[in-house]
Amino acid sequence: MSNSQGSTLQDKEMDLYPSRQHMEPRIIKRQDPVVHSEWTPDAVLSKEQSDFYERNGYLFIEGFFDGQELSHYQKEARELQVTARSSEDEEVIREPSGSEVRSIFAVHKSNPVFQNLSRHPRLLAIVEYLLGGQTYIHQSRINYKPGFTGKEFYWHSDFETWHVEDGMPRMRALSCSIALEDNYHFNGPLMVVPGSHKEFVSCIGKTPDNHFKDSLRKQEYGVPDHDSLTRMVEKSGIDTPVGKAGSVILFDCNIMHGSNSNITPMPRSNIFIVYNSVENKVIQPYSGQKPRPEYIATRNAL
Amino acid sequence: MSNSQGSTLQDKEMDLYPSRQHMEPRIIKRQDPVVHSEWTPDAVLSKEQSDFYERNGYLFIEGFFDGQELSHYQKEARELQVTARSSEDEEVIREPSGSEVRSIFAVHKSNPVFQNLSRHPRLLAIVEYLLGGQTYIHQSRINYKPGFTGKEFYWHSDFETWHVEDGMPRMRALSCSIALEDNYHFNGPLMVVPGSHKEFVSCIGKTPDNHFKDSLRKQEYGVPDHDSLTRMVEKSGIDTPVGKAGSVILFDCNIMHGSNSNITPMPRSNIFIVYNSVENKVIQPYSGQKPRPEYIATRNAL
Repeated sequence: MSNSQGSTLQDKEMDLYPSRQHMEPRIIKRQDPVVHSEWTPDAVLSKEQSDFYERNGYLFIEGFFDGQELSHYQKEARELQVTARSSEDEEVIREPSGSEVRSIFAVHKSNPVFQNLSRHPRLLAIVEYLLGGQTYIHQSRINYKPGFTGKEFYWHSDFETWHVEDGMPRMRALSCSIALEDNYHFNGPLMVVPGSHKEFVSCIGKTPDNHFKDSLRKQEYGVPDHDSLTRMVEKSGIDTPVGKAGSVILFDCNIMHGSNSNITPMPRSNIFIVYNSVENKVIQPYSGQKPRPEYIATRNAL
Repeated sequence: MSNSQGSTLQDKEMDLYPSRQHMEPRIIKRQDPVVHSEWTPDAVLSKEQSDFYERNGYLFIEGFFDGQELSHYQKEARELQVTARSSEDEEVIREPSGSEVRSIFAVHKSNPVFQNLSRHPRLLAIVEYLLGGQTYIHQSRINYKPGFTGKEFYWHSDFETWHVEDGMPRMRALSCSIALEDNYHFNGPLMVVPGSHKEFVSCIGKTPDNHFKDSLRKQEYGVPDHDSLTRMVEKSGIDTPVGKAGSVILFDCNIMHGSNSNITPMPRSNIFIVYNSVENKVIQPYSGQKPRPEYIATRNAL
């Protein structure tokens, strides 16, 4: 059976995206497709949308959910936040300073409304087109980025973490962020580096054990170096797709993204669902360390 | 002669804008003009510009300085930053975490290039129009908001601080911010609440002695309450005037402003000069406390 020593050896042979193993950053060319289906005229995305996603690594769809659906999700998210304030569940993550709820994990399991949302037919059709077939949910959460004190999220590739800490083998996953509030360029919106999903920035250093508890509050490991970031941004700039509540951003697992702080009175909550291909299920973490808990990274899918 | 006890009594009689004296926030209507001159067709600003400033409390002028002037200032600012890294002068302010230089104060006194800039004829003509006559410099500084780690500045009215901590009697001062780098909406630009300069938010609490040393690194006192900020933003929104290096923002001493953090690789340095009317020279601080040092707030002008 796998223990961390054994799995390290085994996994390293097929580790296409080694990270946190050296003291110097490396850039590794993406070894996987971005769009895992052939586009045809009856595809759920237009050719332009599909090509945009392939080239830039993300797709923004304004007004994806109508007013009625949206109100339903907003109401449920607010109620969950109130309940979570007094909760001691490990799924509830708080702001570094103070007790305000920052995120609630695994809402696709714990909450019927968000379970239904995660299986929304129109959304799922797009996800299955992009990932080329059947998927499961690797992670879900509601993020509450409160007004006045919303903290920044430093630049990162999600895949870097999911690969190293969760054991996701290949780049065949994506995130879907559903805006529960109107987003503006000044309330700490998602920033992406378009095209950055085609390169993997191998990060320096080694992950400490049980690192995940702090990393959900503040990123310190799996952080890309300044030179790689500067080069990527000089090449392609920064996009900040913003729009009304009910809009959706789909973005590739390896796109470099982050967000600034939010001192404005406008909160910026969203629902965040990570879909992974069933052909890309997680194995042992490539770090050789203990996997993160089930509520952060699904290991027992389907 | 004035001691802090005597001056407190005397000053409170004519304190039009009391702040940090009560435990409940108060809104006080502005008692002073915004534009202190009558507009005429030969004014240095157009009627539209003058009216915009009166109504919104700020004015953005793209391309105010040409390429040659700009390079001169950029070069000088970079050289000053390098020198300041190893300086122990009190004029040099560092980031809360680490030793990177955040600001250098009083550059209009210590540096011939920035002394000349502060007397730039085209700039001074606008300032004298807006403030209605002769001015002096209350404060100047270069702000270096570095890439990757630029920290946020929470919402504040400069006048609130200058009144309480420096003894500036009336609203007859303005700030001029000269962009040394291109500004984007994602690298922590200045955010203003247009129209907020017409109300004074009296802040709660009392300033501790020698508070200024920390406040230059992190705001904690003289901070407007959430309700007042929310109401102001709901009424008028948030503007983020951004443009190329060489652009200038003039803004009223009482406009509510702040900036988010900056995780992008793009630094956001600017030169910041505060002009005050010679008819509005500072007296004893309205807090009754010891005045801040000369390099932060000029007391011996002209």
